[in-house]
Amino acid sequence: MNDTFEDHCWRDIIPPDVIELYQHYKRDLYIGPRAALVAIDLYELAYQGGAKPVAEVAKDYPSSCGIHAWNAIAPAQKLFAAARAAGLPVFFTTTETRTAAKPGAVRATNRRMPQSQRGPDVYAIRPEFAPQPGETVIYKQRASGFFGTPLIAHLTQLNIDTVIICGESTSGCVRATTVDGYSYGFHMVMAEEACFDRSPISHKVNLFDLHHKYADVMTVADIASRLEGRMQAEAAQ
Amino acid sequence: MNDTFEDHCWRDIIPPDVIELYQHYKRDLYIGPRAALVAIDLYELAYQGGAKPVAEVAKDYPSSCGIHAWNAIAPAQKLFAAARAAGLPVFFTTTETRTAAKPGAVRATNRRMPQSQRGPDVYAIRPEFAPQPGETVIYKQRASGFFGTPLIAHLTQLNIDTVIICGESTSGCVRATTVDGYSYGFHMVMAEEACFDRSPISHKVNLFDLHHKYADVMTVADIASRLEGRMQAEAAQ
Amino acid sequence: MNDTFEDHCWRDIIPPDVIELYQHYKRDLYIGPRAALVAIDLYELAYQGGAKPVAEVAKDYPSSCGIHAWNAIAPAQKLFAAARAAGLPVFFTTTETRTAAKPGAVRATNRRMPQSQRGPDVYAIRPEFAPQPGETVIYKQRASGFFGTPLIAHLTQLNIDTVIICGESTSGCVRATTVDGYSYGFHMVMAEEACFDRSPISHKVNLFDLHHKYADVMTVADIASRLEGRMQAEAAQ
Amino acid sequence: MNDTFEDHCWRDIIPPDVIELYQHYKRDLYIGPRAALVAIDLYELAYQGGAKPVAEVAKDYPSSCGIHAWNAIAPAQKLFAAARAAGLPVFFTTTETRTAAKPGAVRATNRRMPQSQRGPDVYAIRPEFAPQPGETVIYKQRASGFFGTPLIAHLTQLNIDTVIICGESTSGCVRATTVDGYSYGFHMVMAEEACFDRSPISHKVNLFDLHHKYADVMTVADIASRLEGRMQAEAAQ
Repeated sequence: MNDTFEDHCWRDIIPPDVIELYQHYKRDLYIGPRAALVAIDLYELAYQGGAKPVAEVAKDYPSSCGIHAWNAIAPAQKLFAAARAAGLPVFFTTTETRTAAKPGAVRATNRRMPQSQRGPDVYAIRPEFAPQPGETVIYKQRASGFFGTPLIAHLTQLNIDTVIICGESTSGCVRATTVDGYSYGFHMVMAEEACFDRSPISHKVNLFDLHHKYADVMTVADIASRLEGRMQAEAAQ
Repeated sequence: MNDTFEDHCWRDIIPPDVIELYQHYKRDLYIGPRAALVAIDLYELAYQGGAKPVAEVAKDYPSSCGIHAWNAIAPAQKLFAAARAAGLPVFFTTTETRTAAKPGAVRATNRRMPQSQRGPDVYAIRPEFAPQPGETVIYKQRASGFFGTPLIAHLTQLNIDTVIICGESTSGCVRATTVDGYSYGFHMVMAEEACFDRSPISHKVNLFDLHHKYADVMTVADIASRLEGRMQAEAAQ
Repeated sequence: MNDTFEDHCWRDIIPPDVIELYQHYKRDLYIGPRAALVAIDLYELAYQGGAKPVAEVAKDYPSSCGIHAWNAIAPAQKLFAAARAAGLPVFFTTTETRTAAKPGAVRATNRRMPQSQRGPDVYAIRPEFAPQPGETVIYKQRASGFFGTPLIAHLTQLNIDTVIICGESTSGCVRATTVDGYSYGFHMVMAEEACFDRSPISHKVNLFDLHHKYADVMTVADIASRLEGRMQAEAAQ
Repeated sequence: MNDTFEDHCWRDIIPPDVIELYQHYKRDLYIGPRAALVAIDLYELAYQGGAKPVAEVAKDYPSSCGIHAWNAIAPAQKLFAAARAAGLPVFFTTTETRTAAKPGAVRATNRRMPQSQRGPDVYAIRPEFAPQPGETVIYKQRASGFFGTPLIAHLTQLNIDTVIICGESTSGCVRATTVDGYSYGFHMVMAEEACFDRSPISHKVNLFDLHHKYADVMTVADIASRLEGRMQAEAAQ
């Protein structure tokens, strides 16, 4: 049995007797041979107010994940570098903003948004992760990157078997996308430190739920190492 | 502002400063005029081993929610009584078991299931909630009651605007169904004590997430009172 | 039995003995109390080359429906006027053109498109039907207005029971949208002269198929009269 | 350009000048390396009344395709043999009949069905094509084999890139499934003589539409030859 199966960020919040209840979910983790990276909502809105505690930025920027967003930049950059080096197709989700599409009527959550927090600028992908030529942006209005979007068509056409997820928020769009991806039949992998949320408890409990039921939560280092190992194996052939 | 918006079971686990971060989600709760009840996975499997702590039943019955399942029977019965008295369409989800459909290949989660825990018997709806004539059973293979099922077609044909959710598990099929229902455009209501999970922390954090982002979590008494009030208003006309 | 059930454009192409085979589909036609208008792909591309026979415009404008598009303008205008007067929510579909969304990778059909026929200009809605404030544009990449779009969420949120379809092409996006709408549980109505196709035989056979299996094909005059009658009935209350 | 692109059953009904309008759809046909066979509604109901003209059986058996069903048995058997020999995953669709699922409320089409034509017996797969161990039956309530079913999850999990379609009716469930399969991102192939319909004109026009827009229509001999050629190439390695 995999000794590191529970060696993740939820350890300090999920007591051992609860973890024991989930022994029936233990299994070997893996990345399939045809993986894609899907980065959820890495847009400006999540970083507004800067690298400060969420409590300091939440009033002015209700969609910001504050310090949690900023802390996830370096791990996500490492993940992107590994994915791009391995030639994985890369997808980004962001929010539909065209007025004619009525993005205010069909929204990701029930959160009220100040007018200053709408419009295309705040939904631009952060420059650290700027989409490269050939990468695809999925414009969505609900939480899941699959709902009301052509993401499934892109993934099927590329014959993808594994979807690696990063981004925000763990308890919102990341979770919804991961559950849908599992339902559609993909092997789901989550990049632990490259996912973030405004609330640590929701972040940890959602990763815990997802790891057991629907997805393989791995560290960025683990994912990068597996992708690199694959490239070396291919090069040696 | 609604003073009772946060007056729910997660109070003992989500600290006040985190709750403060979610102030932008506060809103008035309601049940729309054309509601339906969707009861998730109230099948025998969740009650196996009896009304005991989950730790005592988990080894033999990995799908059981033990005492949490049994504690939710009375509230769920009250909810069913109120819904049926108010004439709401009632739907049940359970798991597809026909061998030819390959329920083992497309499954709700990654959990390994002993052979003794498969087959139609363990997926029969508990007698306390037995489907009445005219009520509909949705057979599913994934977590969400919407995924790979005709549930959306039934709800649209009945012109439903609100879906009231109860059942299990809060962190699995209940959550997946609730998020999908929100995405499809329904007003979602969750019956707090009539939802359950094997893990209290996952139960509470998932209800917290869902209440703020996607659904109105209400007590069974609140739901029953609103449905009864509506009937009295109609009778008085 | 409804004597006018088969009194439609397919009469000159479907022989009476075949129509007799479809007697089991005869039923009363209707528009439900909460209808919406969904206009499919009424964009410039379909009108390119002008009101000429398709054979004359097809080489330069492979997406044009030529004279059939132009002939449908007046009926569609009458339909729009009736729908707007009756207060129906109005939706338009058109093609996604944002480069980042990779509209060339996930496309409506296998048709090869000259470069001159791409880009936002040719996918602008014709000025005769220009979206009014409050009306919604659905950007799609596949044939169906439902596939990969939030259309179902909009319709559910508005509690729509009937979807009235017009636009093009009858054998492509109109058909795909109509079948999906039926599957989702809406009562589907098609505005006969306000639907069009580059090929009369495909137009007629598809309307024939759809009328029997999935939708109520009505003349524009019939639809307008029913909507107007409803307004008068409401005004008289 | 592929000279045989239009060499199909619709030649006697679609005039050359119309075919000329569809030149922009010409392309090379193919079967991808990871194909599956999906057989639509090859159940007893379609064969009721025997190998007679549809007009003779339609009154008693409104769902029968009569002689067209029976004529398609031998080609479909050849197709099944080729697919099974090549190791393709095989899926069947049929109609949901469990009373609790309310198959009468959510139905494939608007056709009225005599009581004698309901129930599990008439929806059993014909013995000529009986599902083998390991093959999967998809129970559906709408026309498309994808709508309200887990078919997409099965295909994704098997990493399928091409779906070969046979069965009935061409103008109903076959078409709806083929359009959905294209939308989901699969390369779609249709086995011409192994698809059938009660009405020859609908059969031919639908195949014509589908061939140009969404699918590669091939003869059974062509499909069988391609699958066999692939096996020989693999054996020679």
